[in-house]
Order: sequence, then structure tokens, then C-alpha cells
Amino acid sequence: MHAIDKRLRQLDIELPQPTRPAGAYLPVICQDGLLFVSGQFPMLDGELRYRGQVGRQQDVANACLAAELAALNVLAHIRQATHHWQRFASLLRLEGHIASTADWHQQPEVLDSASQLFDQVLGEQGRHTRTAFAPSHLPLDATVELVVIARVYDSHSPSV
Amino acid sequence: MHAIDKRLRQLDIELPQPTRPAGAYLPVICQDGLLFVSGQFPMLDGELRYRGQVGRQQDVANACLAAELAALNVLAHIRQATHHWQRFASLLRLEGHIASTADWHQQPEVLDSASQLFDQVLGEQGRHTRTAFAPSHLPLDATVELVVIARVYDSHSPSV
Amino acid sequence: MHAIDKRLRQLDIELPQPTRPAGAYLPVICQDGLLFVSGQFPMLDGELRYRGQVGRQQDVANACLAAELAALNVLAHIRQATHHWQRFASLLRLEGHIASTADWHQQPEVLDSASQLFDQVLGEQGRHTRTAFAPSHLPLDATVELVVIARVYDSHSPSV
Repeated sequence: MHAIDKRLRQLDIELPQPTRPAGAYLPVICQDGLLFVSGQFPMLDGELRYRGQVGRQQDVANACLAAELAALNVLAHIRQATHHWQRFASLLRLEGHIASTADWHQQPEVLDSASQLFDQVLGEQGRHTRTAFAPSHLPLDATVELVVIARVYDSHSPSV
Repeated sequence: MHAIDKRLRQLDIELPQPTRPAGAYLPVICQDGLLFVSGQFPMLDGELRYRGQVGRQQDVANACLAAELAALNVLAHIRQATHHWQRFASLLRLEGHIASTADWHQQPEVLDSASQLFDQVLGEQGRHTRTAFAPSHLPLDATVELVVIARVYDSHSPSV
Repeated sequence: MHAIDKRLRQLDIELPQPTRPAGAYLPVICQDGLLFVSGQFPMLDGELRYRGQVGRQQDVANACLAAELAALNVLAHIRQATHHWQRFASLLRLEGHIASTADWHQQPEVLDSASQLFDQVLGEQGRHTRTAFAPSHLPLDATVELVVIARVYDSHSPSV
């Protein structure tokens, strides 16, 4: 069992099934050492679990849960695309979009829930640059959307 | 004639002239196998053809036309930057921003018009990851903005 | 002294201290020739200097100053990450997010302040693709947020 899967087990985290794309696109592309993951939402069992804005329909605590759930969906896609982490090198970039009312500005705090989850699960390989955004609304009326670029090994050489 | 240009002809699609940048930047950069295309709007003959929000000034059908027109502008830049497709390898990533009212959430449906156009014109080379966004407004009051990263061959070796 | 530092001196520009991340992430990652810079705000001495929307709390002239200050923060991080420009090859991509009221659409004009600063300081190496956005609000209630991807030399070979 890969070290990352061991850590998931220790943390008592079960990754969701990788979501199906919402349209005519691929969930993930690995190319020349880069892995692009399509935008991920707080989905579980095919359902969007957190809708609406932080500051109105959702509070900060719920928004943190939404960010964690979206992060688990990111991890589920990376695991599948990297043959259970064998080709996974590290995260590179996380964009976090939090649907927000006009007067609520603590998006970095919510996004830290995702960053810390990546840190716990992926260790050193989870370090990333980050950019937070505060749109009024997101597609599907989701509360959180995460967009990740990661680094992968092109060959199937065992890593780590 | 390149296979992609043949498909464009069969589909009776004529690509617009590549747009000029709206400021002090380049429309496209090819570097180390990656091609970054600056944000593209639904422009034709130097004019923005679709303005305002879906749900107010524009309906879903018009928004789909706007997404297609922005996609044609993306293709016009890629064709020019890759010496009429010779250096073009494939799309990698599409970001689609649809100016939306607060209560309209079907952005993926609109963005599918762009994804399907890429699929029809580029075939296998048009496959991409995707992320949809639902901003209230876009620069120039545009209805749609598309941001694409593609993969290119660094040398001028004939591809495909 | 590197040519870029000389140009900074001639322009009488002193770069700010690189900002600390607002959470559990890295300000910069250099990997395989790409440098990802986390989202930068108009910060000086640890304080956000421009808050609120263009069209309400800020006018266009102030927004241009905000864009320049955010651009200086980008440059401060690139200088630090590239050993005082030695590994810096060129900019690739600039995303500019300008917090905007619903009826103000001249975001490209504001973003030109950042693009022209990069041009003045970095010369040919400052050329970039660009995408403008017009969100209602940004994290921390900032007026401007810039996201940059640059190209770097992997080894410490002297460049330029």
C-alpha cells in the first residue's frame, strides 16, 4: 500500500468515487509532467452537498467542510490518474473559489481547510501555491470550487 | 491542407481574424511545449457581439452562440501560433467564464457549446479539462470569456 | 548587479519585501521550468493598501496604482525565487482580477498599468499573455489581485 493511502487510512478518510464530468470534457489530463484537474465541487455520491453563499446560506464552518469535500474530490481524481499515487510527484497550484456575500472577506481562512487537508494527506508532496477568489456565485450554485495543477512523473517508475 | 482545416471547411466554419490584444500584452505565447492563449471574447470583425448577463440581457441560446464565437477566436489564435496547426498537439485546459445573474446556474450547459465545437474541429486533439465560472460581470461587459492552455510541439516537425 | 535590478534603480523603484502567505501554502513554486506565484494583492509593509470596488470606493487612477503595487509584489517574489533574477527567463501569463461595480467595464485599462510596469522593468523578458476579470469582490476586500506564471531556468546557469 502506498504511503499516501496509509495516511488516508490513518486519518480515517475514504476518498469519494471520482466524479463524472458535467459536460463534454475530461476530468484529468496528464501531459509532459503536468496534471490538470478539472474544477471540483463539494460532491458526494453524485450530489452537490453545499450550495449558496458564505454569509447567507452557509456559515464559515460549513464552508470549511465544503472546501474539504471538494479537496477529497481532487484527491480522488489524482489517485485514479496516477495509478494510485505511483506517478504523483507533488501539487503545484491550488485555485480556490468561495461563493461569498459582498461583506464577507475571510476566504483564505476557508481555503486553509483544503490546504491543511492536502498537507495531512500528501505530506511534503502536498505543498502548493494558492490563489483565493470570492465570486458572488459559482456554477451549479456550489459554495466552493477548487482547481488544481499537479506534477507527475511521465513514466511509471515507482516514486517516493 | 491540414486535416483540421479540412474539417473546418466541411463544417462550413471560417475562423475570424485573430483579435488584437486589448492592451500591452501578447495574444499567445508558445514555450516549452505549452501554448498560453490570452482571454478570448465573442468578437467578430473587431466588435464584441454578446454583452451582458445570461438571465438578463442574454438567454441560454444566445450564450451558447457567444461561447462558440469565443471558441472560434481561440482557434484562430492557435492556428496562427502553430503555423496552421503543424505545431499543434492538443488542448489541455479550458476555463469558461459566463456572466450570470445570481439565480441562473447552468453554466456547464453553455460551456458545452465551446467544448463540442473543439471536439468537432480538433477531434482527439480537442480533448481538454475544463472549469466553469459564473461571475456577475466580465471585462467589456462581455457575456463569455474563454482561457485556454494547449500543448504544442517545440520543433516544426510535421505532426499528426 | 543584474540588468533588471539596474532598471529598477533607474526607475527609482524599490521592491517591497516578499509578502508572507495568508495561509497554509507557499508563495512560489519553481518546477520543471515553470514558476507559479500565489495570488498577489496591493500590499505594502504587511498592509493591504487598496480596498473595495472600482466604481465605488476606488476610482480608475487609484485602481491603476493598486495594479502597480500588486505587480511590485509579484516582482519581489520572482526576484527572491530566482536568486536575484539569475534563473528568471520570462513571464508567461498574467491573470488580473479587478473588483468592479456592475456598470464599470474598463478593466483592461487598469491592468495595463501592471503590464506596462512589467515591460519597463523586465524588458523583453516581461512579455506575457493576459486575461482580465471583473469580479464584484476579492478576498480581503482587495481592489486588485494578480496571478502570474513565469518561465525559469532549472539550473543556476547565468542567464541574459
